[in-house]
This record gives sequence, C-alpha cells and structure tokens, in this order.
Amino acid sequence: MQTRATVAVLGGGQLGRMLGLAAVPLGVACRFLDPSPDAPAAAVGDLVVGALDDEAALDEVARGADVVTYEWEGVPAPSARHLAAGGLLVRPGDRPLEVSQDRLVEKDAFRALGIDTPQYHAVSSREELDEAIQAVGLPAVLKTRRGGYDGKGQFVLRELADANAAWSELGGLALVLEAFVPFDRELSVIAVRSHDGVVACWPVVENEHRDGILHVTRAPAGLSELEARARDIAVALLDELDHVGVLAIELFDVNGSLLANEFAPRVHNSGHWTIEGAVTSQFENHLRAVLGLPLGATDARGVAAMVNCVGTMPDVTAVLAVPDAHLHDYGKAPRPGRKLGHITVVADSPADLDIRLATLLPLVDR
Amino acid sequence: MQTRATVAVLGGGQLGRMLGLAAVPLGVACRFLDPSPDAPAAAVGDLVVGALDDEAALDEVARGADVVTYEWEGVPAPSARHLAAGGLLVRPGDRPLEVSQDRLVEKDAFRALGIDTPQYHAVSSREELDEAIQAVGLPAVLKTRRGGYDGKGQFVLRELADANAAWSELGGLALVLEAFVPFDRELSVIAVRSHDGVVACWPVVENEHRDGILHVTRAPAGLSELEARARDIAVALLDELDHVGVLAIELFDVNGSLLANEFAPRVHNSGHWTIEGAVTSQFENHLRAVLGLPLGATDARGVAAMVNCVGTMPDVTAVLAVPDAHLHDYGKAPRPGRKLGHITVVADSPADLDIRLATLLPLVDR
Repeated sequence: MQTRATVAVLGGGQLGRMLGLAAVPLGVACRFLDPSPDAPAAAVGDLVVGALDDEAALDEVARGADVVTYEWEGVPAPSARHLAAGGLLVRPGDRPLEVSQDRLVEKDAFRALGIDTPQYHAVSSREELDEAIQAVGLPAVLKTRRGGYDGKGQFVLRELADANAAWSELGGLALVLEAFVPFDRELSVIAVRSHDGVVACWPVVENEHRDGILHVTRAPAGLSELEARARDIAVALLDELDHVGVLAIELFDVNGSLLANEFAPRVHNSGHWTIEGAVTSQFENHLRAVLGLPLGATDARGVAAMVNCVGTMPDVTAVLAVPDAHLHDYGKAPRPGRKLGHITVVADSPADLDIRLATLLPLVDR
Repeated sequence: MQTRATVAVLGGGQLGRMLGLAAVPLGVACRFLDPSPDAPAAAVGDLVVGALDDEAALDEVARGADVVTYEWEGVPAPSARHLAAGGLLVRPGDRPLEVSQDRLVEKDAFRALGIDTPQYHAVSSREELDEAIQAVGLPAVLKTRRGGYDGKGQFVLRELADANAAWSELGGLALVLEAFVPFDRELSVIAVRSHDGVVACWPVVENEHRDGILHVTRAPAGLSELEARARDIAVALLDELDHVGVLAIELFDVNGSLLANEFAPRVHNSGHWTIEGAVTSQFENHLRAVLGLPLGATDARGVAAMVNCVGTMPDVTAVLAVPDAHLHDYGKAPRPGRKLGHITVVADSPADLDIRLATLLPLVDR
C-alpha cells in the first residue's frame, strides 16, 4: 500500500472510533462521515458532519482517500455506488450492504450457498402471514425485511391468536416470518477477507443477549467441532459477496448444527474482545484488508469475555480494579438502551476468566 | 476519578501519541503542548502549539485539565512549578524533572539511596577533569550534566591523551565524568507508582543500542535473579521522588550486579513492548496513576521484542507479513537518526520470537 494512507469511513460511531484507534499505529489517517457532530470517532480522526446519503458530504469525506469503507450496515447502498462511480475504491462494496439490509434477500443468500437458516417465509399481506405461519410454525418472529436492529421492528408470535396483533403492528411493511429457534447457544463468527481473497476467521464466540442487546461475549466459545463448519459458512459467504474486509455472522447452535441468523458486513460488537484477546484485532485486520495489506493472525491470546455497558457506564475505579479488565468508553452521552462502552477481561484459563467475570458483572448495570 | 477526564500533556511526540491512544478507550481526552504544529500526538488529541516554557501556552493547555503530566524529561521544572502554583495537579511533579535533568544530581540521588552506579566525578574545570580521570579511571565518558540524549553531548576518553580533546569539545559546560562500564547487558526496568504509593514494575528488559540509539528491546530479559533487585531500586527511587506515574531506569548488568545509569521520569522507549506484550501498557498505567485510578497488572503476556525504526520506515507490507508483528508508525517526517516508529513482535516462546525477529530485523534499515 501507499504508506500513511487515508481511509474514509462512512459512519462515526464506536466502531469507527475503534477503527480509528487501530489506524493510528499503522500510520493511517481516518476521516469519518456521520450525521452527529458528537460522533465518537471524532476523537481519533477528522469528522465530516453530514447524512450518509448526502452526495456532497460523501464526496467531501472521500476526497483524496485511498479507500472508502463503512462501519454501519445501514449505509445506503447507493452511497457506496455513488463513490465507486466517482472512481473511488469502496471496500466492502455496495452488495454486502444490499444483501444484509433485506432480511429476505439475506436468508435467500445463505440458502443459495447451502447454509442452513431458521425456517422463514416472506410476508407482504395478511393472508401471506397465515401461509407463513403454516409453513414456519410457531413460535415465530415477524420482522421487517428492512431496518430494525437490537430487537426493534420485531413481533414475537406465540400462538395463532397473535397474528392479528402482529399484523396491526407491522402490517403494510415488507416482512418476513422467521421460526423461533430453540437454540442451545447463540454464536458468532467474525471473518476477514483480504483484497486477494484470503479469508481468516477468529475463533467462534458465544453471545448472550439481554433485552435484544448483546450482553456478554465469551471467546473462544470452546466448541472446536463447530469451528470448521463456521469457517466454511464464512468463506462461502465472503467469497460469494466478493467481500473485502471484516464480516460477522450470527449463528444458532441447535443440537450441534449451525443455523445462520444474519450477517453484518462490518466489524461487530461480538468481535470487540479481539482487541486484547486475539493476536490481531478485527479493527486492525479490517484496515489491513481494505488497504490491501497482509492480514494479521486471528488466533486467540488466552480466553476473553466482553461485557457491554448499556444505558449507563459503570464505576471506572471499580472496573479497573478487576484484574486484566480493559475499559472501552465510547465517549457517548448516557441514554437508556444505548451502548456506551464495553469491558473486556482476559485470562489464561476459563476458570480464571470466570472468577474475574464474577467480579465484573455485578459492576455493570443492566 | 472524575470519569471522562482531561489530561494535559507537556510534549506531543510519539510518547504523547501513545498516551493519547491509551487515553481514548478510558474515555479520557488528552490535550498536548508542543512547539511543532506537526506533533505526532495531534492525531489523538487537541494540540496547543507553543514552547514548553511559555507560560501563556502552559496555561492554555492546562486550562480545565484534571491533571497535567509530561512525556519528555526535558520539560523545564519551572513550567511544572508554574502550573502547580496555579492550583493544578501536576503528576509527576517538578522534582523528578530537576533530578533527572542533571546527571550529577541524578547519580547522587541513586547513591544516596544505596543504589550502585558507575563511578563518576563532577568536572567543572580542566584540572578537575584530571582529578576525575584519576578517581574514575579510563576508559570513561565525559558528559554534560544537563541536556544531551541518545549519545549527544558526550565524549569517550580512552587514554589520558584524550583529555584535551574532550575538554576542547565540552569544556566550559558543567560536566560529569562517568566510568565506561564493561557491562554484560544493558537492561531497563519500567515502573509505575500510583497516587497512593503502590509501585508496580514490568519485567526487566534487555536493550541493545546502535549508534547511541535504542535498537532492540527484548522482554522479559529472562534474568529472574535480578528482578527483585531491579524492583528494589525502582521502589526506592520512586518513593524518594514521591513520583506518581511511570518512570524508567536504565541499568547495567555487570557480573550479575546492577548499576543504575540514568532514569527518565516518563514512559520510555524500552517500555513500548508493553502495548502488546503486557497485561497493561506503560501508557495506560501512566494515565491510571496520574488520574488516581487503580493500576493494571504489569505481567508479561508471552515474550516480546521491540525494534526501533530510525531514519526511515521499513516496507509496511513486508513488516505486516511477519507473524504477530505490530507496527507503530509515529507519523513523523523521515530524517537521519530520527525515531519514526517501532515494531513489536510477540510470541509464546523465546524460540518462536527469535524466528520472527530473524525475519523482521533485515527489514528494518539501520
């Protein structure tokens, strides 16, 4: 690569902030586009304040950049196409955005690659909801095909009588009904694909959600028999999308089989542990990939757990007194349900990790 | 501490840049004072451009800061006193600056604490140089008491006939003659002392210099029998100075005895390996200390080697292809003899480290 490159990043939230932190030691400057002048990433790079579909703002953030990337899967695909049409290198491109932004297209993409998913059925009318319930079974979750995250834009149907309520809540939008999967574990695999098609995966991790928001990630999940299957899923998807950069796939472990739930074509909350817990973090490897540099090793260093701080930040002194606890404050104003930071604890053994986590978890208010 | 504190840092070089990188995840904002508008630390915090003895600039950088610290031992002690007199918390204070800025006072301080040093003798006249040669023996190094670093402001005397040349080079300045020590190894210990007097030391490391500039640091040095003595030295010095923050002591290993050469009252080049190679980096622990937060563990994670990039930066692609190599580009313009960056390699065993280092070292042009 050209050393001391400039990377334009669409989105300036905490993911951008951590990309920027990884960029500085590489001698790479990040420039962010975000609608908010208080964007967390502004602490580590220049910020252009503007909408992610504002062509003038897009042109401004991308001007002279060696590559354009994004830290939010909600970036409009036309924004990526606009920049690419202007001759800019956009990595990943518009297709991972398009596919991941539509739950139906996303699941169809998994299926086309032979990747199992929960049962699902498109719903565009009240009648089609009944058909979908027949096909998918109950309980099931009715979701908007587009938009919605962290549990928003969803309605859980437990019995047939819930159909009317679900329809009155979401009817009129393009929808998909997904089987409610009685999973043993929620897992995710974070993978990175280089400009020349090399794919590396971090160890599969186990995720625990609370109120629809990620609460704790444990890494590695310690399910070595699933690593190869998770890797196959990641390679198939990344290759199909011709994805360059990091991508995260949420998986359900159902009796030892993996079902793909959804993917995010970006660095991911369940990969934050890689900053301290892996040889190379997801943030550094994303930058390496989009800049055409060799990927770093994705091996775990010890065992790690990541705990999200949602709504309020814990007492800093108490957190830092926990052995090997690493605080990540995103610098955001507190607000209920908002991810404000995370804490990663690392240890040499799962037993030591459990001890540290037992001290840490009560400090984090959820 | 007050969360989301502001730290004013006197000096904005690479040490400031790495302090700033450690500050962001803690939710701490750094504001730097540096004479250069191109100061490397500007990438990670606000920069006040001004001289380190300019009271208006000092007041500006320190305004509203929760604590003031420094990243250069050349900060004038009166600058620290000026800020403290204005009611600001300055950590470390002016005394570590004063003591470390005068080689004679520094060595006297070691001796007063029962810490062995190379033989030395003050020199303020040509006659006193002869007395010093008698007392210290030859070979010896004539050094200015104040100023000079990385081998500058020094004259090596190998025989009596060198005395005139040494005097004509340095005469008129306040000088000290130091015995040229036939050391087995150059070592250093990095220590941190908290606001409430707790001292933690990272493992002793071995340093190899080239042309008077640090070339390679290996961590840990693997000299477990010297760890306790190095720790005693550090505790004695830090307590005596009432030092809060990180301090580095350069040591000579002479037949298993430790001689203290000099100390730097700040984060140190021989501690850069702690970013990837220790549980808590010297940069994070310096911030924790000056902010009154609990210190993080200083244990090594595996073994590490740090290689300085001096004068030119190596090929980035080649460096990043070395397993577990971590690049740190300071974003500085190349100039002969200038520290532009460093690379840390980490491994699980010394043998693996040697293999990686053997690949890396030829890439670094010295």
